Amino acid sequence: MNILDIICKKRDKKELNKEEIDFFVKGYTKGEITDYQASALIMAIYLNGMSNKEITNLTLAMAYSGEVLDLSKLGENVVDKHSTGGIGDKITLILMPIISALGVPVAKMSGRGLGFTGGTVDKLESIPGYNTQLSIDEFIENVKKIGISLMGQTLNLAPADKKLYSLRDSISCVENIPLIASSIMSKKIAAGANKIVLEVTVGNGAFMKNINDARKLSETMISIGKLAGKETVCILTNMDEPLGYSIGNTLEVIEAIEALQGDMEDDVKEVVMELGSYMIKLAGCGDNIEDNKQRMLECIDSGNAYMKFLELIQNQGGDITYINDISKFENAKYVVPVHTENSGFVKNIDAEKLGKISCYLGAGRVKKEDDIDYQVGLIINKKIGDKVENNDVLGIIHANDEEKLKKAIDEFKECFQLTEDYVEKPKVILGIIF
Amino acid sequence: MNILDIICKKRDKKELNKEEIDFFVKGYTKGEITDYQASALIMAIYLNGMSNKEITNLTLAMAYSGEVLDLSKLGENVVDKHSTGGIGDKITLILMPIISALGVPVAKMSGRGLGFTGGTVDKLESIPGYNTQLSIDEFIENVKKIGISLMGQTLNLAPADKKLYSLRDSISCVENIPLIASSIMSKKIAAGANKIVLEVTVGNGAFMKNINDARKLSETMISIGKLAGKETVCILTNMDEPLGYSIGNTLEVIEAIEALQGDMEDDVKEVVMELGSYMIKLAGCGDNIEDNKQRMLECIDSGNAYMKFLELIQNQGGDITYINDISKFENAKYVVPVHTENSGFVKNIDAEKLGKISCYLGAGRVKKEDDIDYQVGLIINKKIGDKVENNDVLGIIHANDEEKLKKAIDEFKECFQLTEDYVEKPKVILGIIF
Repeated sequence: MNILDIICKKRDKKELNKEEIDFFVKGYTKGEITDYQASALIMAIYLNGMSNKEITNLTLAMAYSGEVLDLSKLGENVVDKHSTGGIGDKITLILMPIISALGVPVAKMSGRGLGFTGGTVDKLESIPGYNTQLSIDEFIENVKKIGISLMGQTLNLAPADKKLYSLRDSISCVENIPLIASSIMSKKIAAGANKIVLEVTVGNGAFMKNINDARKLSETMISIGKLAGKETVCILTNMDEPLGYSIGNTLEVIEAIEALQGDMEDDVKEVVMELGSYMIKLAGCGDNIEDNKQRMLECIDSGNAYMKFLELIQNQGGDITYINDISKFENAKYVVPVHTENSGFVKNIDAEKLGKISCYLGAGRVKKEDDIDYQVGLIINKKIGDKVENNDVLGIIHANDEEKLKKAIDEFKECFQLTEDYVEKPKVILGIIF
Repeated sequence: MNILDIICKKRDKKELNKEEIDFFVKGYTKGEITDYQASALIMAIYLNGMSNKEITNLTLAMAYSGEVLDLSKLGENVVDKHSTGGIGDKITLILMPIISALGVPVAKMSGRGLGFTGGTVDKLESIPGYNTQLSIDEFIENVKKIGISLMGQTLNLAPADKKLYSLRDSISCVENIPLIASSIMSKKIAAGANKIVLEVTVGNGAFMKNINDARKLSETMISIGKLAGKETVCILTNMDEPLGYSIGNTLEVIEAIEALQGDMEDDVKEVVMELGSYMIKLAGCGDNIEDNKQRMLECIDSGNAYMKFLELIQNQGGDITYINDISKFENAKYVVPVHTENSGFVKNIDAEKLGKISCYLGAGRVKKEDDIDYQVGLIINKKIGDKVENNDVLGIIHANDEEKLKKAIDEFKECFQLTEDYVEKPKVILGIIF
């Protein structure tokens, strides 16, 4: 077997078999197959497509290209959750303590942010003392002890995916459904889950800009799940505006704390309920979706979800006096409201641009090595469908640099498009595919 | 402008403009664009195609990526000739002295052989003393003085093509008409010609295995020629069997000498006449093709062509006593006839395999750095359509290694397929496109 024949086959639109895909992924991970050969094959895949069998074989080859987390000690049904990314996405911080409080074991590795999307690990690290760098033994011990652990990716999970993703990024081959699907699923499988709930975001702040692509991506990932024996559910959610009211690290932690205390934004609540009820179902802890949602609401009302969050933070070294008194979190140097200069209804919000402003203020990374400023970010006071009067507070900028603040104020305003006509609130949940 | 957008555009089947193609070729030649990015673009070109305008812009960008030979001192119409390659192809050695004797200036740079096809430079170097490594000034002076010079490629002609060809070879993207066409034409343009006669070989011993691909390639090269202002004629020739009776360096030189002395194989003669008559026409030395052929025949009969060959060899330091007495060329250690074991008509000859046997004996290179054994090679006594009796001499192996000889004898026999039914001689000239 050699890489030239494999490239030839895909170039000529033929199906690659498991051995050929394994040969490519192993060889490329080891550096025996060059970047330029991988590049030719990836472009051929992009243009000629892959069958569901090929996509599954690629996913499994990438999943098993490095370490694979063994979570079997935590039970038969280990459910993981993943989002294809959004602006202001604090769902993990809110959702995981709730389902943990309802008896679903939660052992979740999260990533750091890059570009205009934030990462759960960065948000957790804005809580003083919280340790995201555990050993795998500690991680599993935590879950056994208190039912939940959230940490960073310390293992070398799916290195083939990392290498291929970075190659795709430098040859204009990122936006391709078979490649996106196998990338996501390979990481989830390497992270040890055997049941997977995926939030597939759709809209101007998401990877998938339209519902049809989001459906195709979902169907592809579900097919991979089926062929790989990992039950998978996809929840399609709207990402035409940010989730909740905050963007930034500390700001999103504070929103998550308030949500767990019962004060949750409507859009955040819908996503949390939908994902959570399916996670509970897949974990074998409740077959009826509506009942599951009801139990989640009760779990928040009773304070159990919030108590589980406190337990999680304390167990991983975080200072819970911050959680119990959010005023302890230090504010950014400049906290400046932005006012509307018109009246009307909010018609559109440029979510991606808001993410970029927050990143520009320091909440995100442009390059992997960049430091993060936990304090900075944006508060969004008006969402799509909201009525605004002239001089209303549209939002609040949290900044530590005056120059950046000024630029952020101007750009913030540009993100909101008003109209005189009544605008309906957008749907949050756009579909459930399984 | 950046390479990611250029890859994107071709990936999405859009036409690249001249600036984008120039940006790619310049950046890649300089090493500013990486191999893996070039690789993705090449695969996208392979799969999505290019318009004639794009192909021409690619050709010109590659032609002007390095030095471009200026042959304007030799006149307005400088005609070059190129073959897409064949087995036993000694046409240049025979054709060039003939047309030079008829007043067409001949300033031709040739390549070395690689793989199963031989190179004119290697054949010339099998003549003791012949110098293929001239300076450009010497080269042009030679043509001015005696009307002909044949040398190796000492200039850095079309380096972008060299780099891209070697990349294509390592990513299964060689067999693609737009890329083959632009590669050939870029080298011809860099070599200084403004009129080009191309021999496009077709058959099992050629790059193009069928007539339709050969026609497409021809039409593409003619379109490049038109758009680039270089008049181009393509002669399609049959390469289902070797050209002439010899394969190997010294052996082919001997065949060329005999041909110029008037003893020319029928198939060689047809190709020489066809290419030559069009070269004379393009050079402005005779509009009537049939007249041109007649003059070529007279030029051979009168001994003028042979005298021009002697003049060429002597002028570049070659020992013409070898030319005047071919028995001076040293024979290989083993010169062994191969006999038929059946009777019938020759139906098929595996020309590519014969080329590989000759290469295996030492007449060609597997790697660029390999040395060449001038003496070894094959003599073919029977061609397609020939009647053979049992125990006839099918051919003669010239070898310097006993082990290799043995293997060559067995494989040589396998190259000939006999049948009881009468077989017609194949056509040599399959088409002329201009």
